[in-house]
Amino acid sequence: MTDTFVVVGGDAAGMSAASKAKRDHPDLEVVVFEKGEWVSYGACGMPYYVEGTVADLDELISLTPEEIIEDRDIDLRRFHEVVAVDTVARTVTVRNEDGTFEQGYDHLLLATGAAPTTPPVEGVDLDCVFTLSSLDDAEGIREALEAEEVTEDLVGSSEGAVVQFIRDRDPKRVAVVGGGYIGLEMADVLRTRGCSVHLFQRSDHVLSHYDEDVATVVEEHLREHGVTLHLGSAVEGIEGDAAGDAEAVVAEDGRTEVDMVVLGTGVRPRTALAEEAGIDLGPTGAIATDEYRETSAPDVYAAGDCAEAVNVVTGEVDYVPLALTANRHGRAVGQTVAGTPTLAGGVARTAISMVVEMEVARTGITDEDEAREYGFDPVSRTVTTKSRSGYYPGSEPITVHMTACRRTGRLLGASIAGTDRAGKRIDTVAAALHEEATVAELERYDLAYAPPFSPVWDPVLTAAKVLNSAVEGE
Amino acid sequence: MTDTFVVVGGDAAGMSAASKAKRDHPDLEVVVFEKGEWVSYGACGMPYYVEGTVADLDELISLTPEEIIEDRDIDLRRFHEVVAVDTVARTVTVRNEDGTFEQGYDHLLLATGAAPTTPPVEGVDLDCVFTLSSLDDAEGIREALEAEEVTEDLVGSSEGAVVQFIRDRDPKRVAVVGGGYIGLEMADVLRTRGCSVHLFQRSDHVLSHYDEDVATVVEEHLREHGVTLHLGSAVEGIEGDAAGDAEAVVAEDGRTEVDMVVLGTGVRPRTALAEEAGIDLGPTGAIATDEYRETSAPDVYAAGDCAEAVNVVTGEVDYVPLALTANRHGRAVGQTVAGTPTLAGGVARTAISMVVEMEVARTGITDEDEAREYGFDPVSRTVTTKSRSGYYPGSEPITVHMTACRRTGRLLGASIAGTDRAGKRIDTVAAALHEEATVAELERYDLAYAPPFSPVWDPVLTAAKVLNSAVEGE
Repeated sequence: MTDTFVVVGGDAAGMSAASKAKRDHPDLEVVVFEKGEWVSYGACGMPYYVEGTVADLDELISLTPEEIIEDRDIDLRRFHEVVAVDTVARTVTVRNEDGTFEQGYDHLLLATGAAPTTPPVEGVDLDCVFTLSSLDDAEGIREALEAEEVTEDLVGSSEGAVVQFIRDRDPKRVAVVGGGYIGLEMADVLRTRGCSVHLFQRSDHVLSHYDEDVATVVEEHLREHGVTLHLGSAVEGIEGDAAGDAEAVVAEDGRTEVDMVVLGTGVRPRTALAEEAGIDLGPTGAIATDEYRETSAPDVYAAGDCAEAVNVVTGEVDYVPLALTANRHGRAVGQTVAGTPTLAGGVARTAISMVVEMEVARTGITDEDEAREYGFDPVSRTVTTKSRSGYYPGSEPITVHMTACRRTGRLLGASIAGTDRAGKRIDTVAAALHEEATVAELERYDLAYAPPFSPVWDPVLTAAKVLNSAVEGE
Repeated sequence: MTDTFVVVGGDAAGMSAASKAKRDHPDLEVVVFEKGEWVSYGACGMPYYVEGTVADLDELISLTPEEIIEDRDIDLRRFHEVVAVDTVARTVTVRNEDGTFEQGYDHLLLATGAAPTTPPVEGVDLDCVFTLSSLDDAEGIREALEAEEVTEDLVGSSEGAVVQFIRDRDPKRVAVVGGGYIGLEMADVLRTRGCSVHLFQRSDHVLSHYDEDVATVVEEHLREHGVTLHLGSAVEGIEGDAAGDAEAVVAEDGRTEVDMVVLGTGVRPRTALAEEAGIDLGPTGAIATDEYRETSAPDVYAAGDCAEAVNVVTGEVDYVPLALTANRHGRAVGQTVAGTPTLAGGVARTAISMVVEMEVARTGITDEDEAREYGFDPVSRTVTTKSRSGYYPGSEPITVHMTACRRTGRLLGASIAGTDRAGKRIDTVAAALHEEATVAELERYDLAYAPPFSPVWDPVLTAAKVLNSAVEGE
């Protein structure tokens, strides 16, 4: 009898695991339960669908259900929700439109993902208030925008009263709540679509996982491009009109009339299924796993946005719900289940975002208070240099903030912002973090130089040079 | 009495050392002897001056002589050639237009650079045959191109015979000899200026320091953009006309009529001064140094294109005359001389070049034969993926070739080619090489992902994934 590998959730982690397990071990029976319609889609592309840069939702689909089932020979069941796990009997209870049934497993992967959080205020359930956590959300926002655009096109020859009516409903004043990646990307996208964008951020700076220097560079850039920032202004409520549509955001800095609200206030891991099965959660609130992403229940794995991972800088568990980790950890679980135990690897909190053509990226620990909590003695420096040789056309400023431990010289993290080829330079720092390099070692890396690509000293090297001088107490 | 630091050569390594030593130790007397006119210039920018992208030679100057002398308080003496070193008496003999004199030193840096090599064939001394190793060379090539262009502009209204005369002399058929960085950049630049370019390469592929897969990608790209490749065709001679101008290149594949020849056949370290002073050269033919770039003579250092350095992959000395190394090693010598012994760091042979808008980069050891000579058991893989998420506009193919040691899994090197943001991705691999990472470790790096920047799996990660499967014998 062949083993059965059951996967709960058909997106990044789930499909990576299912595909890898089946490819490495074709005799394995692989069953994927997905409670919704969509599987194997690029969630990170949703803002670009809203923008219109990506024309159709289908473009965000990596693999169609048919490809998964026929080409990959995976037993994919959409509209099947796993509602219980029995880790002793090794079964899952599955609900679909016909009722519920039991499915046995030899190996189980929980890839239940994360759910958007909403602020604990009145009005988040009004119409015209959106999150962006599913393709349906993306479609809803775009439809709302395009419906009005079409209407406006039609009124060119209409009489004044109608124009006024339309203008009153014109959803071009948008509040984006939350200044993280989703918030900033949505601010950018909505601005591109001609909306007047108000960005609300509870704390004093956008990008709360960034240092203040780079966050400030991004804020100036947003303001220059017409985004109205409401910093240090927690949203206290969303007011609706008689029709139940959002009409204003009330925040610490007052009341702002808007026609649409997009919430980008973070996500929390979907852990209910694991908790009810008696599987341990970790200190971050996500599902606890070992280095193979195995949970406290034997042969039950968790990967992706529902699970913890070890931070390569701190050596402690961390919760970093990002796409590469989901794919990488899912794949590692698939390989392990197929018979080759495979380390899933740590996370460095590396992330990148395009914000009105400014590239913003980070990795590691850049907050000095947090660094101290982990026992480091942090010292940071910020440098602004150029993206290319000064004499080469297109050279633009790049700001790099970098943090190291003064006691050991160990590199802890960095963030980068700039409009010209800034973002992916963070990868060099991420590599150094994985290798527990010192900033002195980073300073000596033989990075690529030619005038169209970099100054002789890459901005990352210049930052390391300046920071290392500080570490060495010059 | 204050110490005197004498620097021979006023470009990258020399000026970096002089500036750093003076900044760290203002009491030090710092004397820089430069035999020519130009100091502190960006040699890597010369192709872009020829192209016209950089309008004036002055733009390539980092620091003017006045800034060096007045702002930095460095005793810069241009048109002063150091013709002898006495390592016992600790003096150098200097020649200028007035004669020769002796200058004592406490610390000496030889930063004499490299000289272009020319093929050992007839005709390299003809007019219209150029190398590109100094600003004067760059100016000469551009003048030659622009003189003809101006002439052609003037003949629009001229009569047939004159037009024919000009056309006969039109220097638009250019032979570039050598398919290394300088050769390819010059082919690109001359093509941009409207020349018909013939590229001659002795071996079967351009970029002889690259693997065949990536070299082939670059060759196809060059052909698509109109460059005629003469591969496996060593140049046997250059023929001149009655006026002494080059008129044809004779190579293994026949005779090609041209109006200009640019030689990009490599460089050799300028070591005569060191040799005559009894300073040891190393196995590469460049000046041997320790990890502080100190030579066999006490307090005599060598840095930049005249000196060896240790390759971080092989642990053996290597000769890699590139700009970052010159700057970094010069700076380290300056810091050491100023009182803080500073490791210069190794080299990884990291390099990057723009070739007709294709970004081409490499690092480490990618030649399997060479890897075997150093005791590795090499295995390589080539993958072609995309520069961005497939659904994001502007996504273009990126080809990555990567090599590891099958026995240990250690990463040995990689090369990359692609037209969209391909090149600087090599830095991640360079970082991994410095840290002696395995390809399995590289596969688990938490690199930055968002749709405008990368697929979920960066092309470097995909290459590592495929190569690691080969290493693990899957």
